[in-house]
Amino acid sequence: MVGDLLRQSVGSEESLLTEIASYVIGAGGKRIRPTVTILCFYAVGGKNVERAIRVATALELIHTATLLHDDINDGGSLRRGKLAAYRKFGVPHAIVAGDFLFTQAYAIGGKFDDAVVDITAEACRRLAEGEIRQQSRARDLSLTEEEYIDIIRRKTAWPIAAGARVGAILGGGGPEDVGAMGAFGTNLGIAFQIVDDILDVVGDEEVIGKPTGTDLREGNVTLLAIDSLRNGAEGGDELARLYRKADNTPDEVRRGVEILRRSGAVDLARGRAVEFGEAAKAALGPLAPGPYKLELLKLVDLVLQREH
Amino acid sequence: MVGDLLRQSVGSEESLLTEIASYVIGAGGKRIRPTVTILCFYAVGGKNVERAIRVATALELIHTATLLHDDINDGGSLRRGKLAAYRKFGVPHAIVAGDFLFTQAYAIGGKFDDAVVDITAEACRRLAEGEIRQQSRARDLSLTEEEYIDIIRRKTAWPIAAGARVGAILGGGGPEDVGAMGAFGTNLGIAFQIVDDILDVVGDEEVIGKPTGTDLREGNVTLLAIDSLRNGAEGGDELARLYRKADNTPDEVRRGVEILRRSGAVDLARGRAVEFGEAAKAALGPLAPGPYKLELLKLVDLVLQREH
Repeated sequence: MVGDLLRQSVGSEESLLTEIASYVIGAGGKRIRPTVTILCFYAVGGKNVERAIRVATALELIHTATLLHDDINDGGSLRRGKLAAYRKFGVPHAIVAGDFLFTQAYAIGGKFDDAVVDITAEACRRLAEGEIRQQSRARDLSLTEEEYIDIIRRKTAWPIAAGARVGAILGGGGPEDVGAMGAFGTNLGIAFQIVDDILDVVGDEEVIGKPTGTDLREGNVTLLAIDSLRNGAEGGDELARLYRKADNTPDEVRRGVEILRRSGAVDLARGRAVEFGEAAKAALGPLAPGPYKLELLKLVDLVLQREH
Repeated sequence: MVGDLLRQSVGSEESLLTEIASYVIGAGGKRIRPTVTILCFYAVGGKNVERAIRVATALELIHTATLLHDDINDGGSLRRGKLAAYRKFGVPHAIVAGDFLFTQAYAIGGKFDDAVVDITAEACRRLAEGEIRQQSRARDLSLTEEEYIDIIRRKTAWPIAAGARVGAILGGGGPEDVGAMGAFGTNLGIAFQIVDDILDVVGDEEVIGKPTGTDLREGNVTLLAIDSLRNGAEGGDELARLYRKADNTPDEVRRGVEILRRSGAVDLARGRAVEFGEAAKAALGPLAPGPYKLELLKLVDLVLQREH
């Protein structure tokens, strides 16, 4: 349902814009964000889901726009198993297509109440703040775990929490429900991102749709890198050297990933992801039991167990 | 007044975002867009201007965001006499700062009625369409005058017309007023862009704040190029060769600009700009006389006579 509206939303008189936008949207992805919004809507007793679908679509358009722009910034060549859009269509076209997607999100989101506009706009702002902070701290091995969590809270968790809160609002939930859903979305989002970082080290490249070691290549200091270096992992000095240096060769990236794999940081990170997952589940405590609450709880496990 | 709100709108917990946004906004520019919105508001009898200022600010934020992104795409190194933001802060930071400005525009614009959201979102969409069409048709000498006008209508005129229409709506104007202001803004915007293209050939580099010949360097086929080539200007073959080729040397750009200057195309283009300016004035016909209508008429002359 969100998928249909997504595809409709990228219609343009300029067929090239529609083509690029459809290319990125067609790559699919996990659609975890809209799923959270819709489930939160129903979980608080929402009935007519049409408005929740529209907001979920707007948030997914924003997410897609930032993927388009992030890929340019990161220099990643694959996204979900397909050539990154900027590689296929060129940087100028990809920048404009991202702007177009922001516009279409605005056209949908701007029709809602001020509270919804405030929540979604704040999520976009946090996202931009997280992205630029990540850029500024690239290859900076003084990054602490708290700072890392702050970055992924902004980049990944805040948009998911925004969708959760808006779902609860549109579903008629009271302030307590909205707060609970926000805490659920935040913790789920942090868990989601930590699992993403783990998969970048131990994932199956065929399944995740891109090569492992992307974070090392881009200099993103993740929880795994922080733990490896803090715990004096074997090869830690070499890992630090690779992290500090741009333009690592494929062999060097493989070597760095190997060091991360053996460092024990994967298990530590998985433990942290599980903690955030548990916090997400606990946040649903005030919510009355029901099938949608159950689905939200199951979603946490899906996120923790996902292999791509 | 719009300037104050603009500066307030770029506050962020991430000081780097505020710095980049302020850098671009601080470069000033002509602020013709907000001026049009505010004058149209008053010209239809508007009283409390606060809401018009907010929409004008949102539109200026969008304009600034597209400048940030366009500079990356065009490879221009100067903007309003200052180093282009992407040269100063790097491409990744500039892309994110542009996204941030879109977000702040959404946060303001999304608070208005559906009609205002529709008009501003449509302007953004047309802008993206115009930009990508311009990119697609770069160095394409088969571009006709009609196609050129269509591109600048989207890229430059539609956003100005959107501000004019919203100003009229917020000022309490009826459908006839809103239509008149829209036609005024569209024609003024086209005239504005043609003058821009003329200044890129005959302007004083110190005054326009960037080197002349930018359009030739970027392969933007403007009205002047179309006219020069159609009229068999002296050196026309050389001009065509320079236009088709990327990476012209500064000497080649100077040579191309010289051919354009001598071709008579400047006078033809000025004539076309005056025609659109006259159409803008004529569009104000239905409007009752008054000081703000007079200011709008004067604005047309200012745009036609501007030297930067």
